[in-house]
Amino acid sequence: MTGRPKSEPDSRSIAIFDSGVGGLTVFREIARALPQESLIYLGDSARLPYGTKSAQTIERYALQAAGHLVAQNIKMLVVACNTATAFALPLLQARLEVPVIGVIGPGASAAVAVSRGTIGVIATEGTVRAGAYRKAIHDIDSSIEVIEQACPLFVALAEEGWANTHVAREVAEIYLTPLVDAGIDTLVLGCTHYPLLRSTIRHVAGDGITIVDSAETTARAVAAELTVQKAIASNGAGARRFQITDASERFSRIAAEFLESPMQEVELVSLG
Amino acid sequence: MTGRPKSEPDSRSIAIFDSGVGGLTVFREIARALPQESLIYLGDSARLPYGTKSAQTIERYALQAAGHLVAQNIKMLVVACNTATAFALPLLQARLEVPVIGVIGPGASAAVAVSRGTIGVIATEGTVRAGAYRKAIHDIDSSIEVIEQACPLFVALAEEGWANTHVAREVAEIYLTPLVDAGIDTLVLGCTHYPLLRSTIRHVAGDGITIVDSAETTARAVAAELTVQKAIASNGAGARRFQITDASERFSRIAAEFLESPMQEVELVSLG
Repeated sequence: MTGRPKSEPDSRSIAIFDSGVGGLTVFREIARALPQESLIYLGDSARLPYGTKSAQTIERYALQAAGHLVAQNIKMLVVACNTATAFALPLLQARLEVPVIGVIGPGASAAVAVSRGTIGVIATEGTVRAGAYRKAIHDIDSSIEVIEQACPLFVALAEEGWANTHVAREVAEIYLTPLVDAGIDTLVLGCTHYPLLRSTIRHVAGDGITIVDSAETTARAVAAELTVQKAIASNGAGARRFQITDASERFSRIAAEFLESPMQEVELVSLG
Repeated sequence: MTGRPKSEPDSRSIAIFDSGVGGLTVFREIARALPQESLIYLGDSARLPYGTKSAQTIERYALQAAGHLVAQNIKMLVVACNTATAFALPLLQARLEVPVIGVIGPGASAAVAVSRGTIGVIATEGTVRAGAYRKAIHDIDSSIEVIEQACPLFVALAEEGWANTHVAREVAEIYLTPLVDAGIDTLVLGCTHYPLLRSTIRHVAGDGITIVDSAETTARAVAAELTVQKAIASNGAGARRFQITDASERFSRIAAEFLESPMQEVELVSLG
């Protein structure tokens, strides 16, 4: 008999990678769903944001981050950044020996499951340019109409703590009204910053539109993959480590908001 | 007799460095004031923005950029980024053999020259945290009252082409009303992105406040330093080169807006 016996727990860590703080919404959901798993979060805060940069640069940054993480004895890599998933997921899956899970597939699946035929996707300029959600949704059901909208100002509003202001409401109306008017029944928050604007987005979209946040669905995909891989950790509380490439007071403040608790024991690391 | 004879022109380039596109406003003014000079512009677009990052990271990025530029036979380095000037100017001046000019000193001098006693400074979070304008102004006249305000959303609004929208007006009112109410007579645009919002800022500030844009004053400082150094180029049209660390369609589009013309022949370079 080869391989790991089914009954042996796998204590290696799950790595979660993002350009900065947004992926902490994914980290939080994975930590809630899988409290026994040890988690390493890597935020490339010295080079954020990724959403406005080129495919080549994002691929290079993602490979550097993955190289840094696989050296830490991990059993899985979660790309908790929509832009990095859009541009670098196939490359990472081809290069790495551990399973690599992105946030777009789970979000697309969840949206298709609830949609009656027209899905709106809001994301960064990079993710929209890559057409990543459109492809992922059409791979499941090609009859669904997909309307994508870049919302670049949402990141700045979320990071400045302006998510629930009148300005945010006005910006959301400008971005979302065309989608609402086009008759979307489901709206995917295709950037990990956007859950912070959820109540503003809900107000503008109205109650008739189902909002899909990929953080929860990604956590479920991670749990399912661990089961497939027979790689679940033993019971008890898993460790949580935070590694970032730029440590500013600003970053810690915003991270606490995304994580809904302070980031403990942050390590400063260097990539590339 | 040692040194360069007074009459011999100096054909070496002037290097202008910024985190991205904002410094193009400074480049434009230097190109206008000194058409005979050869200019190299370096935008670290793969790692922008600097305004929200830590002092340590900004110092490291600035040193890498300076190393890249001094290898290109330059006679002067202009740090056309307020945040990089705030955190890294003394370090660059200590390490480099060529003169290094930042944007804060010229902007502060221009503001003191016109102020009747109370100067407002709007800038990135990093520049405000460093207190760089306050120090520069008080080095000239310690009796002047300085009120600093970080305006982080202005960068996103300028880059998204939203500079003259109702949203921009509302954001400007939130940021600027406390400065206007405090009685400032002069307002320094302490981030090279802000000149794009000039008409919105003017509208909110009213006509009674003098707006100081450091791009023009920095160009004058460069011309003065060239004269002191006896390093003026010979007559004729100087070359213009653009080097960036990330080449996206988005970058070219925004750069054209800052430069008021398309960026020709952009070279992709790697730092660090």
